[in-house]
Amino acid sequence: MDADKAKGKIEDALAAVLPTADGEAAALYAAMRWAVEGGGKRVRPLVCLAAAEAVGGAPEDALMPACAIELLHSYTLVHDDLPAMDNDTERRGRPSTWAKFDEATAILAGDALQALAFAALAQTPCPAWVRAKLGAILGEAAVGVVCGQAAELAGSVDVDYVYGHKTADLFVAAAALGATAGGGTDAQVARLREFARHLGLAFQHEDDLLDGDSPLGRDEAERRVRAHTESALAALAGLPGDTAFLADLAARLATRTA
Amino acid sequence: MDADKAKGKIEDALAAVLPTADGEAAALYAAMRWAVEGGGKRVRPLVCLAAAEAVGGAPEDALMPACAIELLHSYTLVHDDLPAMDNDTERRGRPSTWAKFDEATAILAGDALQALAFAALAQTPCPAWVRAKLGAILGEAAVGVVCGQAAELAGSVDVDYVYGHKTADLFVAAAALGATAGGGTDAQVARLREFARHLGLAFQHEDDLLDGDSPLGRDEAERRVRAHTESALAALAGLPGDTAFLADLAARLATRTA
Repeated sequence: MDADKAKGKIEDALAAVLPTADGEAAALYAAMRWAVEGGGKRVRPLVCLAAAEAVGGAPEDALMPACAIELLHSYTLVHDDLPAMDNDTERRGRPSTWAKFDEATAILAGDALQALAFAALAQTPCPAWVRAKLGAILGEAAVGVVCGQAAELAGSVDVDYVYGHKTADLFVAAAALGATAGGGTDAQVARLREFARHLGLAFQHEDDLLDGDSPLGRDEAERRVRAHTESALAALAGLPGDTAFLADLAARLATRTA
Repeated sequence: MDADKAKGKIEDALAAVLPTADGEAAALYAAMRWAVEGGGKRVRPLVCLAAAEAVGGAPEDALMPACAIELLHSYTLVHDDLPAMDNDTERRGRPSTWAKFDEATAILAGDALQALAFAALAQTPCPAWVRAKLGAILGEAAVGVVCGQAAELAGSVDVDYVYGHKTADLFVAAAALGATAGGGTDAQVARLREFARHLGLAFQHEDDLLDGDSPLGRDEAERRVRAHTESALAALAGLPGDTAFLADLAARLATRTA
């Protein structure tokens, strides 16, 4: 899978899924697009497409699930930035959604992005019994990610719980959605879940290191990034498709500088 | 269908679906339960169960979809009450969720309730191809309801758009979910959608009349309640199951006093 081409397909699909119409809800639509088109790295949807490839499917099979996971991720950022939450006026070098529009519009835009994630997922072109599985995977992750955020907000010091839910749940869902849409067996989907859980945890610990504020201290955080990256790579063994993209991603995330 | 028994089943099912565990996300769980257990009339889930009966299915077939629609409705109320939205400190005679807990917890509780709606729906015990249809119905309604709220917030004077989405979409989804889970044909589901659209519009116009602030004026609002109620009743003709509950509900909503 070519990363640039895959990212282009994700951008095109997201643009097609987001509402463009003028009319009564035009401000909402503008806020939704603002939130999603902010130039993210699209790591989660790329994991989703690559998971389809890893089980021997075509990345295109997972394009709607990839959009769904990015829409879900985007909504969490919109709500995280709200004054009552992190009170961030900037996101990726430009105004956060509530700062650009207003609080009420940002609350509703986040709500609509979560809804659109499920609506988009329901449009995945695959057998209905597969689509039913996708809905269950996304539903579980959507609950989990909020539990992780709530635990962090409540001052939890259980890093495994908080990172496992607020960060890893979406990576796990991305991989499970992609592997399922790509026609993977239950055992293959389980392997990719395991890969993504370690990838997500490595990603979060690396994020802390880049921010210079790991709750575990620098040494322990570095140790965990290495350990989770190794475990992620190990989980890829024996899959029937091409896992080069996922292996490369895990290696790059562990050594990223931004 | 006995209304009191059905309502009891809905309350039991909601209590079982909502998380009770203590632990890291305990405050979130408490806020979710507070929002849902506020003693609503459960009109939408009752419509859902009755729609299953109207197509000749068992109300129980639609119990998880009924929970899903009530969870979705509950989340919209939690977010509507926020300071940046309607700034309501009370809901049904007790503190609104943000007033009882705090703004951040209420934002997250609303987010989690929407997620739980989809997660609960995915647990509906029915063939996977039916469950896939349910996901599409709820996804569409979940987007629509936010569009209606956003249009109202933006000062739209298009009553048909605003009421059609912010209110009727959830009634339509309730009926379509119930009829689909109950094994209805496409034509029967379409009839129940039509019933519920008129029911929802009559409900909203009656709500305005009770609040004494219809944007259309008292006479026109009363005319619309009558017209939508008649159209709702007409849509029930020819369905294979028992429609007495839905017909009675439509008649009662049109003449309710609270």
